[in-house]
Amino acid sequence: MTQTNLQLLTVSLEEDVVEGTDLAALILRDFDLIDGDIVIVTQKVVSKAEGRIAVLADNDPTAFDALVRAESRRILRRRGALAITETHHGFICANAGIDRSNSDPGTVTLLPIDPDRSARRLLAQLEHRTQCELAVIITDTFGRTWRSGVTDVAIGIAGLDPILDLRGTLDHNGVVLQATEVCVADELAAAADLVKRKNGRNPFVIVRGYENTHQRGRGSISTDVVRSYHSDLFR
Amino acid sequence: MTQTNLQLLTVSLEEDVVEGTDLAALILRDFDLIDGDIVIVTQKVVSKAEGRIAVLADNDPTAFDALVRAESRRILRRRGALAITETHHGFICANAGIDRSNSDPGTVTLLPIDPDRSARRLLAQLEHRTQCELAVIITDTFGRTWRSGVTDVAIGIAGLDPILDLRGTLDHNGVVLQATEVCVADELAAAADLVKRKNGRNPFVIVRGYENTHQRGRGSISTDVVRSYHSDLFR
Repeated sequence: MTQTNLQLLTVSLEEDVVEGTDLAALILRDFDLIDGDIVIVTQKVVSKAEGRIAVLADNDPTAFDALVRAESRRILRRRGALAITETHHGFICANAGIDRSNSDPGTVTLLPIDPDRSARRLLAQLEHRTQCELAVIITDTFGRTWRSGVTDVAIGIAGLDPILDLRGTLDHNGVVLQATEVCVADELAAAADLVKRKNGRNPFVIVRGYENTHQRGRGSISTDVVRSYHSDLFR
Repeated sequence: MTQTNLQLLTVSLEEDVVEGTDLAALILRDFDLIDGDIVIVTQKVVSKAEGRIAVLADNDPTAFDALVRAESRRILRRRGALAITETHHGFICANAGIDRSNSDPGTVTLLPIDPDRSARRLLAQLEHRTQCELAVIITDTFGRTWRSGVTDVAIGIAGLDPILDLRGTLDHNGVVLQATEVCVADELAAAADLVKRKNGRNPFVIVRGYENTHQRGRGSISTDVVRSYHSDLFR
Protein backbone atom coordinates (compact mmCIF):
# COMPACT_ATOMS: atom_id res chain seq x y z
CA MET A 1 0.00 0.00 0.00
CA THR A 2 1.73 3.16 -1.23
CA GLN A 3 0.51 6.32 0.40
CA THR A 4 0.76 9.67 -1.36
CA ASN A 5 0.35 12.99 0.38
CA LEU A 6 0.19 16.36 -1.34
CA GLN A 7 0.04 19.62 0.61
CA LEU A 8 -1.13 23.10 -0.33
CA LEU A 9 0.07 26.00 1.81
CA THR A 10 -0.86 29.65 1.83
CA VAL A 11 -0.62 32.64 4.15
CA SER A 12 -2.53 35.89 4.08
CA LEU A 13 -0.52 38.80 2.69
CA GLU A 14 -1.04 42.10 4.47
CA GLU A 15 0.74 44.62 2.25
CA ASP A 16 -0.19 45.85 -1.20
CA VAL A 17 1.74 44.88 -4.30
CA VAL A 18 2.68 47.85 -6.49
CA GLU A 19 4.78 48.37 -9.60
CA GLY A 20 8.28 47.18 -8.83
CA THR A 21 7.38 45.03 -5.80
CA ASP A 22 9.86 42.18 -5.41
CA LEU A 23 7.48 39.20 -5.46
CA ALA A 24 10.29 36.71 -4.84
CA ALA A 25 11.20 38.51 -1.63
CA LEU A 26 7.58 38.46 -0.42
CA ILE A 27 7.32 34.73 -1.16
CA LEU A 28 10.59 33.87 0.57
CA ARG A 29 9.67 35.92 3.63
CA ASP A 30 6.53 33.83 4.22
CA PHE A 31 7.52 30.36 2.97
CA ASP A 32 10.53 28.12 3.57
CA LEU A 33 10.71 26.60 0.12
CA ILE A 34 12.18 23.15 -0.45
CA ASP A 35 13.17 21.20 -3.56
CA GLY A 36 10.18 20.27 -5.68
CA ASP A 37 7.87 23.02 -4.41
CA ILE A 38 5.58 24.57 -6.99
CA VAL A 39 4.93 28.26 -6.38
CA ILE A 40 1.54 29.35 -7.69
CA VAL A 41 0.99 33.08 -8.13
CA THR A 42 -2.16 34.93 -9.14
CA GLN A 43 -2.11 37.09 -12.26
CA LYS A 44 -3.25 40.06 -10.22
CA VAL A 45 -0.02 40.54 -8.28
CA VAL A 46 2.16 39.79 -11.31
CA SER A 47 0.30 42.43 -13.32
CA LYS A 48 0.61 44.96 -10.51
CA ALA A 49 4.33 44.29 -9.99
CA GLU A 50 4.89 44.66 -13.73
CA GLY A 51 2.85 47.87 -13.92
CA ARG A 52 0.17 46.36 -16.16
CA ILE A 53 -2.46 48.73 -14.80
CA ALA A 54 -4.79 51.07 -16.67
CA VAL A 55 -6.64 54.08 -15.35
CA LEU A 56 -10.34 53.69 -16.01
CA ALA A 57 -13.30 55.52 -14.50
CA ASP A 58 -15.83 53.28 -12.77
CA ASN A 59 -18.77 54.12 -15.01
CA ASP A 60 -17.36 54.47 -18.50
CA PRO A 61 -18.46 51.48 -20.58
CA THR A 62 -17.14 53.04 -23.79
CA ALA A 63 -13.61 53.35 -22.41
CA PHE A 64 -13.85 49.85 -20.97
CA ASP A 65 -14.91 48.46 -24.31
CA ALA A 66 -12.05 50.24 -26.08
CA LEU A 67 -9.61 48.72 -23.62
CA VAL A 68 -11.07 45.23 -24.12
CA ARG A 69 -10.63 45.63 -27.88
CA ALA A 70 -7.06 46.86 -27.50
CA GLU A 71 -6.20 43.78 -25.42
CA SER A 72 -7.90 41.34 -27.82
CA ARG A 73 -7.12 39.67 -31.09
CA ARG A 74 -10.78 38.77 -31.68
CA ILE A 75 -14.16 39.11 -29.99
CA LEU A 76 -15.79 35.67 -30.21
CA ARG A 77 -19.16 36.32 -28.58
CA ARG A 78 -21.00 39.10 -26.79
CA ARG A 79 -23.78 38.96 -24.22
CA GLY A 80 -24.68 42.31 -22.71
CA ALA A 81 -21.60 43.82 -21.09
CA LEU A 82 -19.72 40.53 -21.35
CA ALA A 83 -17.36 40.00 -24.26
CA ILE A 84 -15.78 36.56 -24.77
CA THR A 85 -12.43 37.49 -26.25
CA GLU A 86 -9.33 35.89 -27.69
CA THR A 87 -6.44 37.82 -26.17
CA HIS A 88 -3.16 38.50 -27.95
CA HIS A 89 -1.79 35.49 -26.06
CA GLY A 90 -4.53 33.28 -27.52
CA PHE A 91 -6.42 32.90 -24.23
CA ILE A 92 -10.22 32.76 -24.52
CA CYS A 93 -11.67 34.61 -21.56
CA ALA A 94 -14.13 37.27 -20.47
CA ASN A 95 -13.24 40.90 -21.27
CA ALA A 96 -9.62 40.11 -22.24
CA GLY A 97 -8.82 39.31 -18.62
CA ILE A 98 -9.27 42.94 -17.57
CA ASP A 99 -10.27 43.01 -13.93
CA ARG A 100 -11.41 45.69 -11.54
CA SER A 101 -11.60 43.63 -8.34
CA ASN A 102 -8.73 43.94 -5.89
CA SER A 103 -7.38 46.89 -7.91
CA ASP A 104 -7.01 50.45 -6.70
CA PRO A 105 -10.16 52.56 -7.23
CA GLY A 106 -10.30 53.97 -10.74
CA THR A 107 -7.88 51.39 -12.11
CA VAL A 108 -7.98 47.92 -13.66
CA THR A 109 -5.30 45.31 -14.17
CA LEU A 110 -4.38 43.96 -17.60
CA LEU A 111 -2.90 40.51 -18.16
CA PRO A 112 0.91 40.33 -18.20
CA ILE A 113 2.35 40.82 -21.70
CA ASP A 114 3.99 37.38 -21.63
CA PRO A 115 3.01 35.32 -18.57
CA ASP A 116 5.38 32.47 -19.44
CA ARG A 117 8.25 34.96 -19.40
CA SER A 118 6.98 36.42 -16.11
CA ALA A 119 7.02 32.90 -14.66
CA ARG A 120 10.54 32.20 -15.94
CA ARG A 121 11.81 35.46 -14.44
CA LEU A 122 10.26 34.77 -11.04
CA LEU A 123 11.52 31.18 -11.08
CA ALA A 124 15.07 32.35 -11.80
CA GLN A 125 14.94 34.77 -8.85
CA LEU A 126 13.52 32.15 -6.48
CA GLU A 127 15.99 29.46 -7.51
CA HIS A 128 18.93 31.85 -7.33
CA ARG A 129 18.05 32.91 -3.80
CA THR A 130 17.11 29.47 -2.43
CA GLN A 131 19.33 27.13 -4.47
CA CYS A 132 16.27 24.87 -4.65
CA GLU A 133 14.77 23.31 -7.76
CA LEU A 134 11.29 24.81 -8.01
CA ALA A 135 8.52 25.57 -10.49
CA VAL A 136 6.28 28.62 -10.93
CA ILE A 137 2.76 28.82 -12.31
CA ILE A 138 0.86 32.08 -12.89
CA THR A 139 -2.92 31.66 -12.71
CA ASP A 140 -6.08 33.50 -13.63
CA THR A 141 -9.78 32.76 -13.24
CA PHE A 142 -11.58 31.84 -16.46
CA GLY A 143 -15.05 30.64 -17.40
CA ARG A 144 -15.50 27.71 -19.76
CA THR A 145 -18.01 26.25 -22.16
CA TRP A 146 -20.78 23.85 -21.14
CA ARG A 147 -20.20 24.03 -17.41
CA SER A 148 -21.25 26.77 -15.01
CA GLY A 149 -18.82 28.49 -12.72
CA VAL A 150 -15.27 29.69 -13.13
CA THR A 151 -12.07 27.84 -12.25
CA ASP A 152 -8.45 28.91 -12.01
CA VAL A 153 -6.21 27.98 -14.93
CA ALA A 154 -2.53 28.43 -15.73
CA ILE A 155 -1.56 31.36 -17.95
CA GLY A 156 2.20 31.08 -17.48
CA ILE A 157 4.60 28.37 -16.33
CA ALA A 158 8.29 27.76 -15.74
CA GLY A 159 10.24 24.73 -14.51
CA LEU A 160 7.50 22.20 -15.22
CA ASP A 161 5.91 20.86 -18.39
CA PRO A 162 2.27 21.93 -18.41
CA ILE A 163 1.15 18.71 -20.11
CA LEU A 164 1.87 15.30 -18.59
CA ASP A 165 2.07 13.03 -21.61
CA LEU A 166 0.92 9.51 -20.73
CA ARG A 167 0.39 8.34 -24.31
CA GLY A 168 1.73 4.82 -24.59
CA THR A 169 1.49 4.20 -20.84
CA LEU A 170 -0.04 0.84 -19.94
CA ASP A 171 -3.03 0.49 -17.67
CA HIS A 172 -3.15 -2.30 -15.08
CA ASN A 173 -4.36 -4.79 -17.68
CA GLY A 174 -1.43 -3.94 -19.93
CA VAL A 175 -3.64 -2.01 -22.37
CA VAL A 176 -2.20 1.20 -23.81
CA LEU A 177 -4.05 4.24 -22.43
CA GLN A 178 -5.94 6.24 -25.01
CA ALA A 179 -5.25 9.94 -25.63
CA THR A 180 -4.08 10.88 -22.20
CA GLU A 181 -2.31 14.19 -22.21
CA VAL A 182 -3.18 15.67 -18.85
CA CYS A 183 -2.99 19.43 -18.37
CA VAL A 184 -1.41 19.26 -14.93
CA ALA A 185 -0.72 23.00 -15.07
CA ASP A 186 -4.45 23.69 -15.00
CA GLU A 187 -5.03 21.03 -12.34
CA LEU A 188 -2.38 22.65 -10.15
CA ALA A 189 -3.94 26.08 -10.73
CA ALA A 190 -7.37 24.75 -9.77
CA ALA A 191 -6.00 23.02 -6.68
CA ALA A 192 -4.31 26.22 -5.51
CA ASP A 193 -7.57 28.15 -5.73
CA LEU A 194 -9.09 25.88 -3.08
CA VAL A 195 -7.01 27.43 -0.30
CA LYS A 196 -7.47 31.06 -1.34
CA ARG A 197 -9.89 33.57 0.03
CA LYS A 198 -11.42 35.80 -2.60
CA ASN A 199 -10.43 39.05 -0.91
CA GLY A 200 -7.20 38.85 -2.89
CA ARG A 201 -5.06 38.31 0.20
CA ASN A 202 -3.72 34.90 -0.85
CA PRO A 203 -1.73 35.63 -4.01
CA PHE A 204 0.78 32.84 -3.34
CA VAL A 205 0.13 29.13 -2.83
CA ILE A 206 2.81 26.47 -2.44
CA VAL A 207 2.11 22.94 -3.70
CA ARG A 208 4.39 20.53 -1.88
CA GLY A 209 4.85 16.84 -2.63
CA TYR A 210 3.84 16.79 -6.29
CA GLU A 211 5.90 14.10 -8.01
CA ASN A 212 7.22 16.06 -10.91
CA THR A 213 10.78 14.87 -11.13
CA HIS A 214 10.04 13.25 -14.48
CA GLN A 215 8.93 16.46 -16.07
CA ARG A 216 11.40 19.21 -15.38
CA GLY A 217 10.64 20.72 -18.74
CA ARG A 218 10.93 23.69 -20.99
CA GLY A 219 7.28 23.71 -21.96
CA SER A 220 5.12 26.82 -21.84
CA ILE A 221 1.43 27.62 -21.69
CA SER A 222 1.54 29.57 -24.94
CA THR A 223 3.12 26.74 -26.95
CA ASP A 224 1.70 23.64 -25.23
CA VAL A 225 -1.73 24.56 -23.87
CA VAL A 226 -3.20 27.33 -26.01
CA ARG A 227 -4.87 25.69 -29.01
CA SER A 228 -4.52 27.42 -32.33
CA TYR A 229 -7.62 29.02 -33.77
CA HIS A 230 -7.93 26.43 -36.51
CA SER A 231 -7.25 23.32 -34.42
CA ASP A 232 -10.22 23.95 -32.15
CA LEU A 233 -13.56 22.34 -32.94
CA PHE A 234 -15.63 24.95 -31.09
CA ARG A 235 -15.09 28.50 -32.35
CA MET B 1 -0.56 35.86 9.19
CA THR B 2 -3.15 33.12 8.76
CA GLN B 3 -1.76 29.87 7.44
CA THR B 4 -3.94 27.45 5.51
CA ASN B 5 -2.98 23.88 4.82
CA LEU B 6 -4.88 21.48 2.59
CA GLN B 7 -3.91 17.83 2.24
CA LEU B 8 -4.63 15.25 -0.45
CA LEU B 9 -4.23 11.59 0.49
CA THR B 10 -4.37 8.45 -1.60
CA VAL B 11 -3.27 4.84 -1.36
CA SER B 12 -2.83 2.28 -4.10
CA LEU B 13 -5.67 -0.25 -4.31
CA GLU B 14 -4.59 -3.79 -5.06
CA GLU B 15 -7.86 -5.61 -5.71
CA ASP B 16 -10.27 -5.26 -8.61
CA VAL B 17 -13.65 -3.61 -8.28
CA VAL B 18 -16.49 -5.66 -9.75
CA GLU B 19 -20.28 -5.41 -9.84
CA GLY B 20 -21.51 -5.29 -6.28
CA THR B 21 -18.19 -4.29 -4.68
CA ASP B 22 -18.80 -2.33 -1.47
CA LEU B 23 -16.87 0.87 -2.25
CA ALA B 24 -17.55 2.35 1.18
CA ALA B 25 -15.91 -0.66 2.84
CA LEU B 26 -12.82 -0.35 0.62
CA ILE B 27 -12.52 3.36 1.44
CA LEU B 28 -12.94 2.86 5.18
CA ARG B 29 -10.39 0.05 5.22
CA ASP B 30 -7.67 2.34 3.83
CA PHE B 31 -8.57 5.75 5.27
CA ASP B 32 -9.43 6.97 8.76
CA LEU B 33 -11.94 9.62 7.76
CA ILE B 34 -12.59 12.66 9.91
CA ASP B 35 -15.23 15.39 9.87
CA GLY B 36 -14.96 17.60 6.81
CA ASP B 37 -13.12 15.09 4.59
CA ILE B 38 -14.09 15.09 0.95
CA VAL B 39 -13.94 11.63 -0.64
CA ILE B 40 -13.18 11.79 -4.34
CA VAL B 41 -13.93 8.67 -6.38
CA THR B 42 -13.23 7.99 -10.05
CA GLN B 43 -16.11 7.17 -12.35
CA LYS B 44 -14.41 3.94 -13.34
CA VAL B 45 -14.89 2.15 -10.02
CA VAL B 46 -18.41 3.53 -9.54
CA SER B 47 -19.40 2.25 -12.98
CA LYS B 48 -17.87 -1.15 -12.28
CA ALA B 49 -19.53 -1.46 -8.87
CA GLU B 50 -22.87 -0.52 -10.43
CA GLY B 51 -22.44 -2.97 -13.31
CA ARG B 52 -22.30 -0.23 -15.95
CA ILE B 53 -20.15 -2.37 -18.23
CA ALA B 54 -20.69 -3.34 -21.85
CA VAL B 55 -19.13 -6.22 -23.76
CA LEU B 56 -17.39 -4.87 -26.85
CA ALA B 57 -14.81 -6.53 -29.08
CA ASP B 58 -11.54 -4.66 -29.35
CA ASN B 59 -11.73 -3.99 -33.09
CA ASP B 60 -15.34 -3.31 -33.85
CA PRO B 61 -15.73 0.39 -34.64
CA THR B 62 -19.34 -0.08 -35.81
CA ALA B 63 -20.41 -1.58 -32.48
CA PHE B 64 -18.48 1.11 -30.62
CA ASP B 65 -20.18 3.83 -32.61
CA ALA B 66 -23.60 2.31 -31.93
CA LEU B 67 -22.83 2.29 -28.21
CA VAL B 68 -21.68 5.93 -28.31
CA ARG B 69 -24.96 6.90 -30.00
CA ALA B 70 -27.01 4.95 -27.47
CA GLU B 71 -25.30 6.78 -24.62
CA SER B 72 -25.70 10.23 -26.23
CA ARG B 73 -28.39 12.82 -26.62
CA ARG B 74 -26.53 14.56 -29.45
CA ILE B 75 -23.27 14.27 -31.39
CA LEU B 76 -21.82 17.82 -31.48
CA ARG B 77 -18.66 17.27 -33.56
CA ARG B 78 -16.71 14.44 -35.13
CA ARG B 79 -13.04 14.17 -35.97
CA GLY B 80 -11.97 10.73 -37.17
CA ALA B 81 -12.81 8.15 -34.51
CA LEU B 82 -13.48 10.88 -31.94
CA ALA B 83 -17.07 11.97 -31.36
CA ILE B 84 -17.76 14.97 -29.11
CA THR B 85 -21.06 14.02 -27.56
CA GLU B 86 -23.69 15.40 -25.26
CA THR B 87 -24.60 12.53 -22.96
CA HIS B 88 -28.07 11.95 -21.54
CA HIS B 89 -26.80 13.69 -18.39
CA GLY B 90 -25.90 16.78 -20.44
CA PHE B 91 -22.13 16.28 -20.15
CA ILE B 92 -20.10 17.25 -23.20
CA CYS B 93 -17.27 14.75 -23.56
CA ALA B 94 -15.50 12.41 -25.93
CA ASN B 95 -17.35 9.25 -26.98
CA ALA B 96 -20.08 9.60 -24.34
CA GLY B 97 -17.57 8.84 -21.62
CA ILE B 98 -17.17 5.24 -22.80
CA ASP B 99 -13.74 4.04 -21.79
CA ARG B 100 -11.72 0.95 -22.49
CA SER B 101 -8.69 1.65 -20.27
CA ASN B 102 -8.53 -0.11 -16.92
CA SER B 103 -11.47 -2.29 -17.95
CA ASP B 104 -11.44 -6.04 -18.39
CA PRO B 105 -10.41 -7.15 -21.91
CA GLY B 106 -13.35 -7.13 -24.29
CA THR B 107 -15.35 -4.74 -22.11
CA VAL B 108 -15.83 -0.99 -21.67
CA THR B 109 -17.31 1.04 -18.85
CA LEU B 110 -20.28 3.37 -19.35
CA LEU B 111 -20.94 6.42 -17.18
CA PRO B 112 -23.18 5.85 -14.15
CA ILE B 113 -26.86 6.44 -14.96
CA ASP B 114 -27.12 9.23 -12.36
CA PRO B 115 -23.72 10.13 -10.85
CA ASP B 116 -25.26 12.59 -8.35
CA ARG B 117 -27.40 9.74 -7.02
CA SER B 118 -24.35 7.45 -6.92
CA ALA B 119 -22.56 10.10 -4.85
CA ARG B 120 -25.50 10.51 -2.47
CA ARG B 121 -25.71 6.76 -1.94
CA LEU B 122 -21.99 6.42 -1.21
CA LEU B 123 -22.09 9.44 1.11
CA ALA B 124 -24.97 7.95 3.09
CA GLN B 125 -23.05 4.69 3.54
CA LEU B 126 -19.85 6.46 4.60
CA GLU B 127 -21.60 8.81 7.02
CA HIS B 128 -23.65 6.00 8.52
CA ARG B 129 -20.57 3.90 9.20
CA THR B 130 -18.29 6.70 10.43
CA GLN B 131 -20.74 9.13 12.03
CA CYS B 132 -18.62 11.86 10.39
CA GLU B 133 -19.87 14.72 8.24
CA LEU B 134 -18.31 14.13 4.82
CA ALA B 135 -18.76 14.91 1.13
CA VAL B 136 -18.39 12.74 -1.97
CA ILE B 137 -17.41 13.75 -5.50
CA ILE B 138 -17.38 11.38 -8.49
CA THR B 139 -14.93 12.43 -11.19
CA ASP B 140 -14.15 11.72 -14.82
CA THR B 141 -11.52 12.97 -17.24
CA PHE B 142 -12.79 15.36 -19.93
CA GLY B 143 -11.26 17.48 -22.66
CA ARG B 144 -12.29 21.10 -23.09
CA THR B 145 -12.38 23.80 -25.71
CA TRP B 146 -9.49 26.14 -26.48
CA ARG B 147 -6.94 24.48 -24.24
CA SER B 148 -4.96 21.30 -24.89
CA GLY B 149 -4.94 18.40 -22.49
CA VAL B 150 -7.59 16.78 -20.36
CA THR B 151 -8.42 17.51 -16.72
CA ASP B 152 -10.58 15.74 -14.16
CA VAL B 153 -14.00 17.24 -13.50
CA ALA B 154 -16.89 16.42 -11.20
CA ILE B 155 -19.78 14.39 -12.64
CA GLY B 156 -21.57 13.72 -9.34
CA ILE B 157 -21.57 15.29 -5.89
CA ALA B 158 -23.16 14.93 -2.47
CA GLY B 159 -22.76 16.82 0.79
CA LEU B 160 -21.21 19.91 -0.76
CA ASP B 161 -22.49 22.62 -3.09
CA PRO B 162 -20.58 22.36 -6.36
CA ILE B 163 -20.62 26.13 -6.87
CA LEU B 164 -19.17 28.53 -4.30
CA ASP B 165 -21.20 31.67 -4.78
CA LEU B 166 -19.18 34.77 -3.94
CA ARG B 167 -21.43 37.27 -5.69
CA GLY B 168 -21.77 40.30 -3.48
CA THR B 169 -18.56 39.52 -1.57
CA LEU B 170 -16.30 42.53 -1.07
CA ASP B 171 -12.68 42.60 -2.17
CA HIS B 172 -10.05 44.18 0.08
CA ASN B 173 -10.88 47.66 -1.24
CA GLY B 174 -14.53 47.15 -0.40
CA VAL B 175 -15.51 46.73 -4.05
CA VAL B 176 -18.11 44.07 -4.82
CA LEU B 177 -16.52 41.17 -6.71
CA GLN B 178 -17.81 40.68 -10.24
CA ALA B 179 -19.44 37.42 -11.37
CA THR B 180 -17.65 35.03 -9.10
CA GLU B 181 -19.34 31.70 -8.95
CA VAL B 182 -16.48 29.28 -8.50
CA CYS B 183 -16.95 25.65 -9.52
CA VAL B 184 -15.15 24.21 -6.51
CA ALA B 185 -16.39 20.73 -7.44
CA ASP B 186 -14.27 20.80 -10.58
CA GLU B 187 -11.34 22.35 -8.71
CA LEU B 188 -11.50 19.55 -6.14
CA ALA B 189 -11.69 16.95 -8.93
CA ALA B 190 -8.66 18.48 -10.64
CA ALA B 191 -6.72 18.62 -7.40
CA ALA B 192 -7.41 14.95 -6.68
CA ASP B 193 -6.04 13.92 -10.06
CA LEU B 194 -2.62 15.30 -9.08
CA VAL B 195 -1.97 12.45 -6.64
CA LYS B 196 -3.22 9.63 -8.88
CA ARG B 197 -1.18 7.32 -11.02
CA LYS B 198 -2.76 6.58 -14.35
CA ASN B 199 -2.68 2.82 -13.95
CA GLY B 200 -6.10 3.11 -12.34
CA ARG B 201 -4.86 2.01 -8.93
CA ASN B 202 -5.81 5.24 -7.11
CA PRO B 203 -9.60 5.36 -7.41
CA PHE B 204 -10.01 7.16 -4.07
CA VAL B 205 -8.50 10.47 -2.94
CA ILE B 206 -9.26 12.21 0.34
CA VAL B 207 -9.15 16.02 0.46
CA ARG B 208 -8.61 17.08 4.06
CA GLY B 209 -8.75 20.61 5.42
CA TYR B 210 -11.01 22.24 2.82
CA GLU B 211 -13.03 24.93 4.57
CA ASN B 212 -16.47 23.98 3.44
CA THR B 213 -18.52 24.42 6.57
CA HIS B 214 -20.41 27.29 4.93
CA GLN B 215 -21.60 25.18 2.06
CA ARG B 216 -23.05 21.95 3.32
CA GLY B 217 -25.55 21.96 0.49
CA ARG B 218 -28.04 20.05 -1.52
CA GLY B 219 -26.65 21.11 -4.87
CA SER B 220 -25.89 18.65 -7.65
CA ILE B 221 -23.75 18.59 -10.76
CA SER B 222 -26.74 18.02 -13.03
CA THR B 223 -28.69 21.02 -11.74
CA ASP B 224 -25.92 23.47 -10.83
CA VAL B 225 -22.99 22.80 -13.19
CA VAL B 226 -24.35 21.38 -16.44
CA ARG B 227 -25.40 24.30 -18.62
CA SER B 228 -28.55 23.90 -20.64
CA TYR B 229 -28.15 23.59 -24.39
CA HIS B 230 -29.59 27.02 -25.04
CA SER B 231 -27.77 28.94 -22.29
CA ASP B 232 -24.35 28.08 -23.73
CA LEU B 233 -22.70 30.50 -26.14
CA PHE B 234 -20.54 27.84 -27.81
CA ARG B 235 -22.54 24.98 -29.35
